[in-house]
Amino acid sequence: MHDNGYKGLNHFDNKGNARMVDISVKDDTTREAVARGEVIMQPATLELIARGRVAKGDVLGVARVAGIMAAKETGRLIPMAHPITITGVNVDFRLRQPDRVEIQARVRTTGKTGVEMEALTAVSVAGLTIYDMCKAVDREMVLGRVRLVHKSGGKSGTFERKDEDSWDM
Amino acid sequence: MHDNGYKGLNHFDNKGNARMVDISVKDDTTREAVARGEVIMQPATLELIARGRVAKGDVLGVARVAGIMAAKETGRLIPMAHPITITGVNVDFRLRQPDRVEIQARVRTTGKTGVEMEALTAVSVAGLTIYDMCKAVDREMVLGRVRLVHKSGGKSGTFERKDEDSWDM
Amino acid sequence: MHDNGYKGLNHFDNKGNARMVDISVKDDTTREAVARGEVIMQPATLELIARGRVAKGDVLGVARVAGIMAAKETGRLIPMAHPITITGVNVDFRLRQPDRVEIQARVRTTGKTGVEMEALTAVSVAGLTIYDMCKAVDREMVLGRVRLVHKSGGKSGTFERKDEDSWDM
Amino acid sequence: MHDNGYKGLNHFDNKGNARMVDISVKDDTTREAVARGEVIMQPATLELIARGRVAKGDVLGVARVAGIMAAKETGRLIPMAHPITITGVNVDFRLRQPDRVEIQARVRTTGKTGVEMEALTAVSVAGLTIYDMCKAVDREMVLGRVRLVHKSGGKSGTFERKDEDSWDM
Amino acid sequence: MHDNGYKGLNHFDNKGNARMVDISVKDDTTREAVARGEVIMQPATLELIARGRVAKGDVLGVARVAGIMAAKETGRLIPMAHPITITGVNVDFRLRQPDRVEIQARVRTTGKTGVEMEALTAVSVAGLTIYDMCKAVDREMVLGRVRLVHKSGGKSGTFERKDEDSWDM
Amino acid sequence: MHDNGYKGLNHFDNKGNARMVDISVKDDTTREAVARGEVIMQPATLELIARGRVAKGDVLGVARVAGIMAAKETGRLIPMAHPITITGVNVDFRLRQPDRVEIQARVRTTGKTGVEMEALTAVSVAGLTIYDMCKAVDREMVLGRVRLVHKSGGKSGTFERKDEDSWDM
Repeated sequence: MHDNGYKGLNHFDNKGNARMVDISVKDDTTREAVARGEVIMQPATLELIARGRVAKGDVLGVARVAGIMAAKETGRLIPMAHPITITGVNVDFRLRQPDRVEIQARVRTTGKTGVEMEALTAVSVAGLTIYDMCKAVDREMVLGRVRLVHKSGGKSGTFERKDEDSWDM
Repeated sequence: MHDNGYKGLNHFDNKGNARMVDISVKDDTTREAVARGEVIMQPATLELIARGRVAKGDVLGVARVAGIMAAKETGRLIPMAHPITITGVNVDFRLRQPDRVEIQARVRTTGKTGVEMEALTAVSVAGLTIYDMCKAVDREMVLGRVRLVHKSGGKSGTFERKDEDSWDM
Repeated sequence: MHDNGYKGLNHFDNKGNARMVDISVKDDTTREAVARGEVIMQPATLELIARGRVAKGDVLGVARVAGIMAAKETGRLIPMAHPITITGVNVDFRLRQPDRVEIQARVRTTGKTGVEMEALTAVSVAGLTIYDMCKAVDREMVLGRVRLVHKSGGKSGTFERKDEDSWDM
Repeated sequence: MHDNGYKGLNHFDNKGNARMVDISVKDDTTREAVARGEVIMQPATLELIARGRVAKGDVLGVARVAGIMAAKETGRLIPMAHPITITGVNVDFRLRQPDRVEIQARVRTTGKTGVEMEALTAVSVAGLTIYDMCKAVDREMVLGRVRLVHKSGGKSGTFERKDEDSWDM
Repeated sequence: MHDNGYKGLNHFDNKGNARMVDISVKDDTTREAVARGEVIMQPATLELIARGRVAKGDVLGVARVAGIMAAKETGRLIPMAHPITITGVNVDFRLRQPDRVEIQARVRTTGKTGVEMEALTAVSVAGLTIYDMCKAVDREMVLGRVRLVHKSGGKSGTFERKDEDSWDM
Repeated sequence: MHDNGYKGLNHFDNKGNARMVDISVKDDTTREAVARGEVIMQPATLELIARGRVAKGDVLGVARVAGIMAAKETGRLIPMAHPITITGVNVDFRLRQPDRVEIQARVRTTGKTGVEMEALTAVSVAGLTIYDMCKAVDREMVLGRVRLVHKSGGKSGTFERKDEDSWDM
């Protein structure tokens, strides 16, 4: 195969056609991925979310459920992603004064391919749910910095993103 | 209703329980929303995507389909979002040297509620699809700045985010 | 058509074949349905749920989200049900000492057919979610008495089930 | 961990946040669950269903398909349920004079967690489908007594609910 | 716009990018589409299906339910298709000696766009279901001649495919 | 069991009731299925598709994504099909002058049952997507000859349909 512009992008065959990569011969191993992101908002919006936590209007409780359920939908949203039987998901939040909610998703599976996309999808949908539930008071929120911070299991080894602090959960 | 911490968050009833807000009496009007976001990557990754555009390994073609299909899934991903019969979706990309792909989704409907969530979901899933298709060469890509830039139709009037340039599409 | 055993069951045509009944010519009106059900459990299980409400292990918060999302899935679960663009959903719970959680779902739409199935589905899935979250401590819980208690809108008029108390919500 | 009200409910972490429990290290074993429920109706409605069985308006045939398909949707309906690759489903009915249809679902898998939720979901959706197909003649039907009657496989051992007769199928 | 190879294909914008065409300004009218197809099989397989019709192993009953449910999934399967709130579906079969089952789906809606794709999808999935249920005895069945035979409603007027007989249903 | 008309159709139990066949005890093996089909069209329509391939209005690129995603939906569309964790999918096209596009899908898994239905579903939905994207210029296209051409893995051994040429991909 000559270098025709998509070398290295394994979701294309040698004619450049998109495909779901064959992983039949890969081993079943325990795999984990952790992704993070954040929603930037007005301080007053963060205040509303924070108060809801101690009272009852629990934005983050709904966003957590949305994120966990979205992890299970990943294979249906991302065209070339393999369907994966996830074995565990946690979605957590940190309120950062004055203006942001940080989101973390940890996904586990025992299977032939990693769960990066599941973790990233969980973070994104949890963030979009926060947006949805607060948009009546703050239309200008921004979902940002959605990124992979940890990955382990599988042949490619462990990945740790630099300069990420521990959430100690 | 006294101020119990979730005032203004209309996705909660007056006891703080989450609900899908009743919009039965709202008018059917033509509504539009435009959202944007970006995927930050290594310059070499952007180069691969750019070359695929002129050759055949079309990352952005697949991401566009993913974004359009995700707009239709919004009501199933976001817990309190209303199901909406979308009447039109465009997803576009701009390659920004040296290190990013910008994403824009424009969604239209004729209905009782807006399509902000549909546009934001389309952008997010298009961005996640770019991540998925390029992650074999660049694990550290970041999906960022997912935001609403325009909204029109409905009682709350037109919203234009400041400092956004025109994509002239 | 002679009486061949399915007369009155309008989900069959005059040969007895199942169909989705044609409602094209029905008017769009505002419609509402309220359904109720209950989960019977050991008193100790009810106690756990009750404590979670004041602490943070919020079984009912998760079940509420599940019920609301399930209302949106009704047309995909029930074969002959029409897809409906729901305009509002509330799911509520009452803890009844010593051994049960009562569930109520109220669903609204503006459309050509009623939302009884959506309300019943929301109650059922909220109940199943309570089961799922508590089954580690109580396998013998029973989901029961899932029933329609109110229906209004449309040509068939208002229905009120007898001997149902008001939830005053 | 102090006793903060959700002890024993393993779908919460030690801060009370909902999660999908990690089952990565559990063994793949053959597992089975059987659930039952019933739909109570007017005797005339049962008569219609019974006649449809010998004629062609086959309410129970449609409800069976709905139940089997719903078993496959369980992981998408129940927020904290693991996605499961089911390996077999049977849904059966017994007509009980004068006023009820009994429903039984048997689900099997080879995997890391049980299929109780799949069996309970199959019974519930089969029952809701009976309601849907007969509601034009009997709005007051009640779906009741949805319960687990048998469970085997996995570390927690076999469970048999007392006072359940055999269906001999 | 110069002729760049996709002129006339309205699912592409003037740069050739796929999109969901905007139909916001189209009128809501009653629309209907009828599609047909067939499954070719060994005579012995047709015989099994025919006997099942009078006995109980009802392949066609299951295929009918599958076709009706698939019509509701069309907007999720076909990338550029608009989501449509279908108002009625019929799926019918004709056994044609010696070797085929003919399938017909009739779909109706009141909306802004036609239901051709819904009718074609219903026929295809009903046919695939026949294949699935009979493949243990006949692997070489062929699903063929899936086609639109009638379309009415909307601005483009009525279409009738030539040389199609009436099913008189 | 006497011969009651559905003997050999293993998707029915010995009373003729539809079921999802129990495959719990089958071995996990690597399995592959290849299916093919075609869309017959006017030569001018084929010409448009062919030009889009070299320009940018890429009908086949969208149809490929649709086919790959549909393979993952198979277990939700076909009532008695088992959910399968697919490990690889390719969808390819051949343009055949003067009037047809041939479609081929190759699906792989490591599991307890074959992926024939997944391959056939991928071909069908890819074909329906071609229809959808070109229907504005050619309503009379026909999706035909959807068939299994190869199957390997599992106890039933390898199947090769006769008179199929090689696509050499």
